[in-house]
Amino acid sequence: MIKKVGVAILGLGVVGGGTYKTLLEHREFYKRTQGVDVTVEAVLVRNPAKAQALGVPEEIVASNIAEVIANPNVDIVVETIGGCDAAKDYVLAALREGKAVVTANKELICKYWHELERVAKRTSCGLYFEASCVGGVPIIRTLLDGVQGNKVEQMMGIINGTTNYILTKMTVEGADYAETLQEAQRLGYAEADPTNDVEGFDALYKLSILSSMAFHTKVPQTKIFREGISQISGKDIAYGKELGYTLKLLAIGKNTDKGIEVRVHPTFIPKEHPLASVNDAFNAVHLRGDAVGDIMLYGRGAGSLPTASAVVSDVLYAATHSEVKYATFKNTATAESNVKFVSDFESAYYLRLSVDDKPGVLAKISGVFAKCGMSIIQIAQKGQYGNLNKDRVPLVIVTHKTTENICKKAVKEIKSLKIGTIESVIRVEQ
Amino acid sequence: MIKKVGVAILGLGVVGGGTYKTLLEHREFYKRTQGVDVTVEAVLVRNPAKAQALGVPEEIVASNIAEVIANPNVDIVVETIGGCDAAKDYVLAALREGKAVVTANKELICKYWHELERVAKRTSCGLYFEASCVGGVPIIRTLLDGVQGNKVEQMMGIINGTTNYILTKMTVEGADYAETLQEAQRLGYAEADPTNDVEGFDALYKLSILSSMAFHTKVPQTKIFREGISQISGKDIAYGKELGYTLKLLAIGKNTDKGIEVRVHPTFIPKEHPLASVNDAFNAVHLRGDAVGDIMLYGRGAGSLPTASAVVSDVLYAATHSEVKYATFKNTATAESNVKFVSDFESAYYLRLSVDDKPGVLAKISGVFAKCGMSIIQIAQKGQYGNLNKDRVPLVIVTHKTTENICKKAVKEIKSLKIGTIESVIRVEQ
Repeated sequence: MIKKVGVAILGLGVVGGGTYKTLLEHREFYKRTQGVDVTVEAVLVRNPAKAQALGVPEEIVASNIAEVIANPNVDIVVETIGGCDAAKDYVLAALREGKAVVTANKELICKYWHELERVAKRTSCGLYFEASCVGGVPIIRTLLDGVQGNKVEQMMGIINGTTNYILTKMTVEGADYAETLQEAQRLGYAEADPTNDVEGFDALYKLSILSSMAFHTKVPQTKIFREGISQISGKDIAYGKELGYTLKLLAIGKNTDKGIEVRVHPTFIPKEHPLASVNDAFNAVHLRGDAVGDIMLYGRGAGSLPTASAVVSDVLYAATHSEVKYATFKNTATAESNVKFVSDFESAYYLRLSVDDKPGVLAKISGVFAKCGMSIIQIAQKGQYGNLNKDRVPLVIVTHKTTENICKKAVKEIKSLKIGTIESVIRVEQ
Repeated sequence: MIKKVGVAILGLGVVGGGTYKTLLEHREFYKRTQGVDVTVEAVLVRNPAKAQALGVPEEIVASNIAEVIANPNVDIVVETIGGCDAAKDYVLAALREGKAVVTANKELICKYWHELERVAKRTSCGLYFEASCVGGVPIIRTLLDGVQGNKVEQMMGIINGTTNYILTKMTVEGADYAETLQEAQRLGYAEADPTNDVEGFDALYKLSILSSMAFHTKVPQTKIFREGISQISGKDIAYGKELGYTLKLLAIGKNTDKGIEVRVHPTFIPKEHPLASVNDAFNAVHLRGDAVGDIMLYGRGAGSLPTASAVVSDVLYAATHSEVKYATFKNTATAESNVKFVSDFESAYYLRLSVDDKPGVLAKISGVFAKCGMSIIQIAQKGQYGNLNKDRVPLVIVTHKTTENICKKAVKEIKSLKIGTIESVIRVEQ
């Protein structure tokens, strides 16, 4: 027996358009393999030309959200508009009317998850958002239904394609940030205003969602430390490479004895780490569970069809598991008051200084580290023979694990020595 | 409201023991995060000392399967005995009695899936086997609930840890097969009789299961081409490395225009391929879907707790999605008659010859390739200056894609030239 399921798609941009095409082209396939006949019963689109270009029949193009929601043939509403204005109102309206909602909107889920979930619970509707994080990679399904038997200890992800594309180019070609960003913009990998990607906001929204699920407690975006890649110099990538590290923008979540630690920042990882070979616009999430150990999921984190794959996966999941909803952190009510978040997190550090090429300089700097209790793993001074006293030379130091506050203190003390400048501080994970 | 779920564990070996410990230690965690109180209500074990060692209370140690199945507190039966004798009888008995079954038994599912599924459907029981393939990596969940919106075009997997451990050692240390196998046996990575692993049977069972799910049709083990790693020489690994390839035992499934192609054999892949850096006992499955593109799942394919993670994931899945069963190929009835399997599959080939160091030899060999329509990509003759006519020299050739039959024909013709021997033929994938 084939179950009939009607879908409405709000917005026919990159993801909405891909979803429309995927549902249309696979209709017979889903009947055969899933036992569901999924039809698109309505689309809502600001620019009707988009619907025409996709060959959407005129009779299913709705003129407003009320019409979509009143349509009794619509069981599931797919939201691919983005942002938190119309998208939020439409999703709430759909949930209130008893429609299941599938959304690709990370910002919406990150900011209004509680509010949406409350309404969804009241009307017993499903709320699904696999497509909000890491495109077609089924990371949310994995957290909910694959590694749910584990206490997730940590999660490290490359979850923004734009920055990974830029850092890969900088690493492989030795290019600098500004020119690589321009090329990425020319090729469509970066937006005209790249802030959302390069400053880590996109990764932050996704990390908020993923770590909330991994740690079974709402992780608000305000608790996430964030640093983007716009200050990264090609020099650091090159020096890091010499020392055996690859630079990635990582989203990191750890559930430690002291509390939950969440952060997005450029990070050096050993070049043998599975994440180090995740290149170009590919994404990956590396998880550590107390039973499963290390696992990694890898794939395209964006793009029309990969993201549509996640949207459609949710549509089919909703159609075949209708009683199972995304009520993911069962301790929601107590979460924000009881859960501790760690701001003074632990990390190892890479520091690049530009110091006077004089006797005693290294002794002074290592004195500061010793005083702060920071232990040095690697050190490389890049002077030239015969250059003494003439110029400043680069000095690269990698430390053992310490805390963010101790590192800041050391940096301040080194500055006060007035023997050079600190050009960059980059965190290092194993 | 907390749902109570009782589990029986059959067999307390590596996986059963890990499952027992995981369920016990996480009981409060599952109550809080999954809303289910999972208790172990019975264990069945041949050697009671194993139960004692794990601290299993005497009152839940059953003396026979009838007792386990008659226990009204048992909702889910976990089978971790292995093999197809007692395991099969017990699983059938449990399903007949209306208990859901979770099994880690790849051989059982590969060989008796239809029979088990028929009984499960009759009594409306769930039959779950995430732990049968690739340990803790949620590959079955991903196929069922993550990429189910895609037509899976191909799957390439490193799904046997023993062989990957051996090949990694041979690659990194330049060691030969026999000594590496011995070391693997000493360290517990290989069995005393390693046939099941090194000859590819273990990978074959798993490929049968995974490709059946990926292609929505039963893929019987008899349709799978199989070749193990016991004939692999360290020389081939070294020459392949020089040409940019890494050797892996791959399980490959492709859904082509000509039919389904399934095979397990040593395979050279470009060293940049995501699977090439999956080392030691780690496993990974690389999938290509028509919407999602390339994705990969990586993790530990065996071991007590990683496999227990998959078993427990199925237990929790069964407890929370009780109406969703593994009825995975809806076209079962027609499958075996309608589905075409390709035996003369396409591949590129690496050939290592040992040839006379005489004028005209290369011309003759390349003449055979030309006649067979096989086009050469890479060639390397490893002679020594001054050695002419004295000795045989290694000649390594990598061809473009052709078919298995054409390659066999070329090999036969080269043999008939009587100018040397063909030392190895290894398939190459991109």
